Amino acid sequence: MTFYAGQMRLLDALDVEGYVGTFTPDGVTDHAHRGERVEGRAEMLAGAVAALPRYAGAAVRHWNDHYLVEEVDENTLHVSYCSLVSRTDSEGRVTFEPTFAIEDVLVRVDGRLFTRSRTIHRDRPSARAS
Amino acid sequence: MTFYAGQMRLLDALDVEGYVGTFTPDGVTDHAHRGERVEGRAEMLAGAVAALPRYAGAAVRHWNDHYLVEEVDENTLHVSYCSLVSRTDSEGRVTFEPTFAIEDVLVRVDGRLFTRSRTIHRDRPSARAS
Amino acid sequence: MTFYAGQMRLLDALDVEGYVGTFTPDGVTDHAHRGERVEGRAEMLAGAVAALPRYAGAAVRHWNDHYLVEEVDENTLHVSYCSLVSRTDSEGRVTFEPTFAIEDVLVRVDGRLFTRSRTIHRDRPSARAS
Repeated sequence: MTFYAGQMRLLDALDVEGYVGTFTPDGVTDHAHRGERVEGRAEMLAGAVAALPRYAGAAVRHWNDHYLVEEVDENTLHVSYCSLVSRTDSEGRVTFEPTFAIEDVLVRVDGRLFTRSRTIHRDRPSARAS
Repeated sequence: MTFYAGQMRLLDALDVEGYVGTFTPDGVTDHAHRGERVEGRAEMLAGAVAALPRYAGAAVRHWNDHYLVEEVDENTLHVSYCSLVSRTDSEGRVTFEPTFAIEDVLVRVDGRLFTRSRTIHRDRPSARAS
Repeated sequence: MTFYAGQMRLLDALDVEGYVGTFTPDGVTDHAHRGERVEGRAEMLAGAVAALPRYAGAAVRHWNDHYLVEEVDENTLHVSYCSLVSRTDSEGRVTFEPTFAIEDVLVRVDGRLFTRSRTIHRDRPSARAS
């Protein structure tokens, strides 16, 4: 999971160029819950820069758990996990964003992993609990 | 920890039949902090179904950490860890249940792991801090 | 990460003697964000005992993620990770301390890992988000 440790640090440091560089050039991010699909590093970078003001005044951290890794072929992995996102403000107060489930396709290029696609589902109350 | 990634997904999806199926037929769940011991899949399933309304209106996620695994024999593992449980409501607000420490006995049957027993201790303030 | 699972349990159990014993005799803890550097087990223990009242009435848990391990030589590891700290009070209410980034130097002595130094950085809002 070293790949995610590195990628999440770039994301949480708001190093948008570094983060986008962990995707393949044709990488896709799909915020399925708001129908927002972004394709290619240039478009991803523009979207990430535009989203930066959301994080003004807060240190963001992604806490991931329950990774399931499926090896599709020797250079392709399907990885799913869930994520809790905290925001610590300058006074040290911690708040949380809605929890998410994520599905990634990772590919190995020249021995290094990249995200080819990331699909993000916001957690919704289950219909089973009724 | 693939076993837990799979089992926690079933639990968080409120797939109670799937979750109970990850226990041995004579599996035991012991909520030690409220003296509630349930034995066998049928009893576990009835208890889980009865508890479903607790999760109405919220997406539940278990966040586990600090797994310690002790191999008792080639088909038996003692695993302990702690768990933080979040609830995300339909507006995306996140709240948390009290944190827990868990002790499991896992057994391997025909090459597949099952939980034979799970003992759950709710975290209480320590007497050392005074 | 068995080392951390064990060390964090001692810390969360407020077993300050046990926790300090996971450091080398000349171990250092540096709370960089408040300029508080403590050196050697005796000084660390005194500091930890003095801090215990902070945790009165709460069960503390450290939730770590995104470990990156760099092997410096065969007996020295640089490990960095981030940490979320929860407090569960006697009524089960959960609150959180500010999130942190941690940098450790671990050394292997007679086959067993110890922390030689721990540097703790409190998360601050990033200047990039503006």
